[in-house]
This record gives sequence, structure tokens and C-alpha cells, in this order.
Amino acid sequence: MIYLDNAATGGFKPNSVIETTVSAVKYLNANPGRSGHRLSKTGAEFIYSARKKVSEFFNNGEIDRVIFTKNCSEGLNIAIHGVIGKGDHVITTCFEHNSVLRPLFTLESKGIISLTIIYPENKKCVTVKEIENALLPNTKLVIVNHISNVTGSINNVKSIGEFLRGKNLLFMVDGAQSAGHVKIDMQKFNIDILSVAGHKGLYAIQGSGALIFNKRVDISPTYQGGTGTESFNTFQPNCYPEKLEVGTLNLPAICSLEEGIRYVENSLDYLEIRLYEMTEYLIKKLSAIDKVKIYSSPNPAGIVAFSIENLSSIEGAERLSNEFDIAVRGGFHCAPLMHKFLGTDDEGLIRVSISAHNTKRDLFLLVSAVKTICSF
Amino acid sequence: MIYLDNAATGGFKPNSVIETTVSAVKYLNANPGRSGHRLSKTGAEFIYSARKKVSEFFNNGEIDRVIFTKNCSEGLNIAIHGVIGKGDHVITTCFEHNSVLRPLFTLESKGIISLTIIYPENKKCVTVKEIENALLPNTKLVIVNHISNVTGSINNVKSIGEFLRGKNLLFMVDGAQSAGHVKIDMQKFNIDILSVAGHKGLYAIQGSGALIFNKRVDISPTYQGGTGTESFNTFQPNCYPEKLEVGTLNLPAICSLEEGIRYVENSLDYLEIRLYEMTEYLIKKLSAIDKVKIYSSPNPAGIVAFSIENLSSIEGAERLSNEFDIAVRGGFHCAPLMHKFLGTDDEGLIRVSISAHNTKRDLFLLVSAVKTICSF
Repeated sequence: MIYLDNAATGGFKPNSVIETTVSAVKYLNANPGRSGHRLSKTGAEFIYSARKKVSEFFNNGEIDRVIFTKNCSEGLNIAIHGVIGKGDHVITTCFEHNSVLRPLFTLESKGIISLTIIYPENKKCVTVKEIENALLPNTKLVIVNHISNVTGSINNVKSIGEFLRGKNLLFMVDGAQSAGHVKIDMQKFNIDILSVAGHKGLYAIQGSGALIFNKRVDISPTYQGGTGTESFNTFQPNCYPEKLEVGTLNLPAICSLEEGIRYVENSLDYLEIRLYEMTEYLIKKLSAIDKVKIYSSPNPAGIVAFSIENLSSIEGAERLSNEFDIAVRGGFHCAPLMHKFLGTDDEGLIRVSISAHNTKRDLFLLVSAVKTICSF
Repeated sequence: MIYLDNAATGGFKPNSVIETTVSAVKYLNANPGRSGHRLSKTGAEFIYSARKKVSEFFNNGEIDRVIFTKNCSEGLNIAIHGVIGKGDHVITTCFEHNSVLRPLFTLESKGIISLTIIYPENKKCVTVKEIENALLPNTKLVIVNHISNVTGSINNVKSIGEFLRGKNLLFMVDGAQSAGHVKIDMQKFNIDILSVAGHKGLYAIQGSGALIFNKRVDISPTYQGGTGTESFNTFQPNCYPEKLEVGTLNLPAICSLEEGIRYVENSLDYLEIRLYEMTEYLIKKLSAIDKVKIYSSPNPAGIVAFSIENLSSIEGAERLSNEFDIAVRGGFHCAPLMHKFLGTDDEGLIRVSISAHNTKRDLFLLVSAVKTICSF
């Protein structure tokens, strides 16, 4: 199989990640931090080390404000439901995934929040001016998708963050498709809240993710439960990370996340350039095929979205899988407004998502397959 | 190390569980069910197979009403926050873990629910009569801890369920310490909602758990997001399991859960008897030591709680770890009301939790260590 669905789940895991995970599964079967014995303490040390690594990698300045989640969606939900109150106004964009849109639409439909969704005029990315125009006195939260999971298009979260600095609101970024692909410096970019997936660009296993925030942020816990601390407190402890981490932590996944970050942290520039060049190459080759329409520009997330004339994206992806054993994704990618924005809400888009470990041969075979499909 | 902290996280994982997990981590790196390609479909088949296995094992009668969670606490929270509405009355017990108590106290403090907590008169387990006496016309939910994580004491959920059958309310069971240790037949016991951990008695890895319910139950989703289905639906899809499963599923953990259930399903009777006998043996031996007071009866969860005169439980557990390399847990075990009930809210209890894979030698060495500690 040629695996080009890395934006869904990264298909390549480094040996270091696999070995770390396997070691945890085999030799670290104890509840980290819950008991005082050697193995529990060792687990707690691994958790702390991973928390420190995540904090340093995204530079939030606060180790204890890294919350381990099971996936990116969970982090987005914890934050959205935990910071928004009755009467707040929220600004977001048409680039967002349903993991941002559905919580917001739910809160809007209950009359808790009002919502402004920006459809950028330049058809590419949200501008600072558009954010500025959307601001209201009661704006509490601005949520921006860093890199689109549909097209790979990038919002300039650094400029937006700099503009929002000093304002009485929170700036939240969905880093599902950017973490591990481009540098995210929360302090420099003035990002208050960031949610990331472990199993995509960060090379960790499924079940890993993190919600990362700074001292300006207070998140009310949606779920409550055992933390191994303050047993007699009938409410959730009011300190981080315990406030937002309920129940047994997933040690193998958390260890894999630290190891995945170790894998990318020193080669981020290389990975960024490689994927930019790979997407550039693929876009050039696919553009040359009649019937193919491209919806992406070269990008460091490795995403290239396209359509084939008179063929639904679901069918196109299915043919690539069935006839050529090439794994891509068709459909709407849980981002409904993006398709309305692009005018692809009828047939969706075929999304190719490349990892730095794919080869030009993989792309060559994909292009050949698309050519074959288009030639009939 | 002699590991006797299996109620926190099971220390022994069968080879079949480890190999399945490792295979998923190495060879199944795709997003199950999100894309149409071969690997994604294979992942979806594994997920379905695991869902079927969980459904059959607990006999809820509805495969699609098995929700994969990251731990037992998450399942308890999803259910509690998702079924209770304004003005409802909830009945629960002093045996509960903070993962039940904290959500309930939170809802009570917000004025959403009223709450009755049963402290059984017989000092052992909640009786049907006590449940009956607590019922109010607006009782919506009865939550009972199946086996106490502190002492291993058992509530007769079968009798309680039978008594509640036909009543206009839901019966929920916290199966954290019972799943994998005793048979739980949801249809026979009339249990509407059950939450279980994968990494304790079910021999799966951390990050696995399940919330299981029947057709009488409708759970409003606390979190919303990507499901890979109905992308243009701005709200959470109204069908199970999608309604309650947001974001990428944890395939390795889910595969491990199926394999763990395969491991226990045919030897449940053996495991039950073995742990009963092991706890019986340990209780007999520990009882013979001056200064030791036992708080458990023989039970199939492998739990024996005790105190040592003039020694806090935390210190006792620490000495067992530091001086004898024996892993047990001291403290309050996230169950505050249980300690008030037992009168151990000053010093907590040392909890030994045995797995069927511990040996009599392990117990012999523990008893020797406790004797040594008590002799000074």
C-alpha cells in the first residue's frame, strides 16, 4: 500500500516511538502517580518528563498547564466548554473542523454564546483586519484553525496573535494539522490555548494529544473525578493539571508523545521544507492532468486537495484504493464550511496527505494512477 | 518487585494483549473508519469486532451502545452529565469513587439535582430496602458501585436491578473493580448503564475503557466534534456510537480491550474462585498479626484493605515499597465517603490488590514484611 492519508493518522512511526510505547505496555503496568511505590513513581516521572517536553516544545511557559488528552478534539472541547460563559461572543473561521464548529453551534443554539464566522475575502486565509472587524465588546474567545485539514492552507496565527495581544480575550488555535509540521511558539505568537493531536504530525500513537495553555487561562472542568489528590475535596481540585485530568492517565500514549516530539524537534526545519517541496512537486504534476482541479498551494503540512471532473471525491478515493492500493481520503473531512467556501460541497475533495517519509516514487505512482482514472 | 496494586492498574498483561497492541501500533497506523481505503477499513473492522465483543461480554443487547472511552471515569462522566436534567433526583452510595461523587456534588451545588447518599446500616452493602426508602417521584438515576475499590466489598447489583425493573428511572453501575472479576449480565441484572476500565480486571492497556448502555438510555453529548459521518450536520449526529465518540479512536487500546476480554471470558469462574481464595488466605494470615486490623472480607476482586496500629497507611505503603519492594497503595483511594463510613478518614487504609497471576509466595512475602513492620 502507498499510504497518503497522514493527516488522518500518521502512517510512519519512528522506531524510538514504537520501542518506547512497547516498553511502557510491557514493563510499566502501574498507575502513574496514584500510589507511592516504585513503579507508580517511575510512571509519574515519565508523565512529568512528557509534560515538560510538550511545554518546552510549544513554549507555553507553564509545565502544569499541559493537559494530556486522548485526541485533539477532546482538548478543543475541554477548552471551548470550559472557558466560555453565558453572553460571550466567539469569533472563528470557515476553516474550522467540526470539533470546533459543533461545540460552538451547540452553545449558540442553547443561547449561551453569539458567534461570528469569518469567510476570508482573499479566499486564502483570515486577515488581521477581518478579525478586527469582527471584534465586539463581549468577545471572549477567538478560535483560528492553524492549517486546514482540507487544503493545507495556513492562517497566520502569529500576526493574529500579535494583534490580539493585550486585549481582554483569549486566542485559541487548533493545531491538529500544524503541530510537528511548523514551529508553534505560544509565547511569541501570543497563543493562549492550543490543542494538538499526537498521532498526526507529532509521530506518536493514537490515544495521545495535549491541550496547552498559559496563565491567563482558567478552564472550568466539564468532567470531574479521581485525581489521586485531595481525596476529601468533594469538588475537582483547583490546580492544574489535576483540575482537567480525570481518571487513569494513558502512560503508553503519553510516553509515545514525548518520544514523537523528540523525533521532530531537531528536524522541524528539514521536515517543513521537505513537505513543502513534496506538495509543490505533486501540485505541479497533478495540475498537468486534464480534468484535475487543485485546491491547495504548496504547504508544510503535506496536504494536497483536488477534484476530478465528473467523479465524486468518495468514488475517486475508492478507485485509488481498490485499483491502485493508494490510501487517500475522499469526502468532506469534517469541515463543512470549508467546502461551502470552496464550492465543493457537492462532491467533496480528494485529499492527499504526505508524510516526510513518503518518497517521490509514491507521488509518481499516485500521479500515474490519477492519470489512468482520468483517461477513461 | 512484588506488584500488589492491581486495582489501580493490572500489572500482568497476557501475551495475546501485548502482541495485539504492538501489532496495532506497528501495522495499523491509519484512522479507523474515517477514510475508505484498505487500512482504514481494516481498522474499522477491528473496532466493530471489539464493540461486538464488549457488547456480548456484558450482554447489553445493543452493539452500537458500546462507547469506547479512555478510562472508566470518562464513561461515568459522559453518562452522569448526559442523562441528568434540571430537577432530577439521584440516589447513590457511600461506596462511590470520586468519579461518581464529584460529578454529582458539582451538579448538586449548581442546583441542578438533588442527591441522596445511602450509608448502609448493615455496614456491609446497600440493601434493596434502603434503595426503596430513598426513592422519590423525581428519582431519575440510581448509581451503585459494584465492588468497592477500597475494601472489595460487593453490592448486590442483581437484586437492586431486579427491584428497579419497570420503574421510570435508570440504573447505573460503576464496574471499575468488578469487570473481569465477576460476571456482569446487564440484561439479566437490569443494569441500564455500565462503565468499565480496560486496564484493571479486563487485562487491557491504559487508555481503554467502555461505557455500555441499553435502548432505554439516551445520553446527551457533553462534547461534540468530528465523527467522520454527516459532515454537514452542524450538530452531533443523533445515532450511537457516533453521538458520543468524538475524534480519532484509540485503535491499539480498543484492540487490546477485545483481546483482554477474550482472555478472561472463558476463565471467569476460575479467576473469581482464585482471587476469592487468595484474599481469604491473606486475610487469615494478616489477621493473625497483632496491630493489624482488616477491613475486607474474602472477595473476587482481589482486594484486602488493612491498617497497622500507630502507622499511617501512606507510611505503611511507603515502607512496604522502600524496604521490601512490595507495591501496594496507601491513602484514601479517591473514595472519601467510604473512609468516613469505615472510620478510617484519619489515616486511610493500606490496600493490597491481588491479580490471579500473583502467587502465594507473593502473599507470604507481604505477610512477612507486615510482620516485620509491626514488630518494631
